[in-house]
Amino acid sequence: MANINDNFLKLQDNYLFSTIAKKVNEFKNNNPDKKIIKMGIGDVTLPIPKVITDAMQKAAQELEDINTFKGYPPEYGYSFLKEKIIENDYKKRNINIDESEIFISDGAKSDTGNILDIFKCGNTVAITNPVYPVYMDTNIMMGNKIVYIPMSKENNFIPQIPKEKVDIIYLCFPNNPTGVSLGKRELQKWIDYAIENNSIIIYDAAYEAFITEEDIVHSIYEIDGAKKVAIEFKSFSKTAGFTGIRCGYTVVPKEVIGFTKTNEKVNLNKLWARRQSTKFNGVSYITQIGAEAVYSDEGKIQTKKNVNFYMENAKIIKNELKKLGFGITGGVNAPYIWLKTPDGLTSWEFFEYLLNEKQIVGTPRKRIWNRGRRIF
Amino acid sequence: MANINDNFLKLQDNYLFSTIAKKVNEFKNNNPDKKIIKMGIGDVTLPIPKVITDAMQKAAQELEDINTFKGYPPEYGYSFLKEKIIENDYKKRNINIDESEIFISDGAKSDTGNILDIFKCGNTVAITNPVYPVYMDTNIMMGNKIVYIPMSKENNFIPQIPKEKVDIIYLCFPNNPTGVSLGKRELQKWIDYAIENNSIIIYDAAYEAFITEEDIVHSIYEIDGAKKVAIEFKSFSKTAGFTGIRCGYTVVPKEVIGFTKTNEKVNLNKLWARRQSTKFNGVSYITQIGAEAVYSDEGKIQTKKNVNFYMENAKIIKNELKKLGFGITGGVNAPYIWLKTPDGLTSWEFFEYLLNEKQIVGTPRKRIWNRGRRIF
Repeated sequence: MANINDNFLKLQDNYLFSTIAKKVNEFKNNNPDKKIIKMGIGDVTLPIPKVITDAMQKAAQELEDINTFKGYPPEYGYSFLKEKIIENDYKKRNINIDESEIFISDGAKSDTGNILDIFKCGNTVAITNPVYPVYMDTNIMMGNKIVYIPMSKENNFIPQIPKEKVDIIYLCFPNNPTGVSLGKRELQKWIDYAIENNSIIIYDAAYEAFITEEDIVHSIYEIDGAKKVAIEFKSFSKTAGFTGIRCGYTVVPKEVIGFTKTNEKVNLNKLWARRQSTKFNGVSYITQIGAEAVYSDEGKIQTKKNVNFYMENAKIIKNELKKLGFGITGGVNAPYIWLKTPDGLTSWEFFEYLLNEKQIVGTPRKRIWNRGRRIF
Repeated sequence: MANINDNFLKLQDNYLFSTIAKKVNEFKNNNPDKKIIKMGIGDVTLPIPKVITDAMQKAAQELEDINTFKGYPPEYGYSFLKEKIIENDYKKRNINIDESEIFISDGAKSDTGNILDIFKCGNTVAITNPVYPVYMDTNIMMGNKIVYIPMSKENNFIPQIPKEKVDIIYLCFPNNPTGVSLGKRELQKWIDYAIENNSIIIYDAAYEAFITEEDIVHSIYEIDGAKKVAIEFKSFSKTAGFTGIRCGYTVVPKEVIGFTKTNEKVNLNKLWARRQSTKFNGVSYITQIGAEAVYSDEGKIQTKKNVNFYMENAKIIKNELKKLGFGITGGVNAPYIWLKTPDGLTSWEFFEYLLNEKQIVGTPRKRIWNRGRRIF
């Protein structure tokens, strides 16, 4: 008899953004004439810069010629792309990352979920609240124990180290969904904690392209000691509008170690390499050529222009909401604005109000349940 | 303290095909002038038909225009592609599959590995021997109990139902690596077994495009009752040379059920949908447009032509090996030829001999170990 993974039964029926999409589609079907402003799923709206689509067209053409045809891609990504990543995202910030520490993938969502494959089921995992739902749902699927770290007005949205010992810590800065960023001093506390407690930091830097302030780090490896304990996830989705093209990468430095049940040290780079070579087959050549073009001179100018457009939108929204008296965060180093719902409305009530009355789609806070009781 | 998944320590250091690639590269570095014939990894060599690359170029162009730009793809695939799959791969064979039962992905390798996420760790799993190493390694990673079903000269390479009860059964026909196919009567035995024992069949049909004989099924759903117990995996890698483009799909019929630990029935379609929406973000629009073009009239003609070319190669190899007196299987409904190594050489010794003396890369049998002892 085939037994299922019972942890799935502890999940809400649908992934948060699937629920949002469903509700929006229902509204659309009932109100076909109404124009909806969608700010729910963090999708991009601007087209891909021509320098990138031109490169992808050329790559597609190469595949039709036997002299330039490419079969299976290298399982961890083409060197031509990894070299550009090292040069632009790390060397420029004085971070030394080797090619063998970079794993090209179809996006940060897959990687931040799949990374748990290399860890034991049953680790104690810290995630902030509110949170990008992937961290929470994938840990529930694994049967891990979750410790929620509040980010709220009370702590200025700065997550504090929990009293309880934690084995794995998810940090996403600039943060999805609150839009807040964390200064170096605050990040250093987490790295120091991880070093002291042999914990691992899962650092999601998907939004680093939106950083405008000087003292905010673009990579966790700008923090002392981070290469010993942090795995970093980056995405072309937001940097270059690749939500529909699917490309990202994960950095697992060779120094990062986990422990066997008999306390032996194991190199996590080696485990992730084994996981990816066994359960993944690399990223489309066309996609990787597109990602490479993001790092061309013209690619940098054009993607930066798009990022500035999103940040200008964020600024307008932020300023208008402020004028209206809303309590808000974000919009400075991230395109996200997080607001306090008015008049004691819950997050979902306000979501419904915005959709039904104003035809604006927002992202409600993910509901968090504990033993059948909603705790947030 | 972050604990790793100790099951990884039971794996051989490298994935089989990574080991092969490493050995080939070593030989190449030491013998830069020698030309190597690569028949190790089942990669394709012919370029992609122009009708497909043209479609992909057009798709890339669409992404540079704000009026035709596409962001996040639907998480389970675009309807335009699913409709083509239903029409061509199922309806034509009188199989009724609904759109909600199809999940487009980046390839069958990812899916046959990731499918285990929805099952409990600890199921008893049957895999044939020899085997596509992904089935074996991903089950070791999960800590599942593996029952090996021999396929050898003694049983005419027809796997027999094991005496021991098994919960999940991997079947791949036409088979990788032996190239043998299974008749309807033999497949029916497995489906009947699965129905009777509430087991699940993981059916890998990646090589169905190479079938030349009339009575060999292209889909497991051609077998009575299969929709109750079988999950089917298909790939554009071999059908259309997409090894470097990355696209496949998985079919999970609504009737297929698994059991909770308290013996309640759970719809596996719903679990896989939840898994994919949480740990995957859909396939590149450009890729899906390319896959759609595989089903165009010209796409069908061109991809069939390529398949015929590979089968012609297989025929030549098969006939020459036969003349030389080798015991072989395959080459009729699959491009693979599996041979008995001569003079008592082990599979790896023959692999080394072929590489070093003849500059031909083959695929050795994956070594199977049990409690520190090599059993195959």
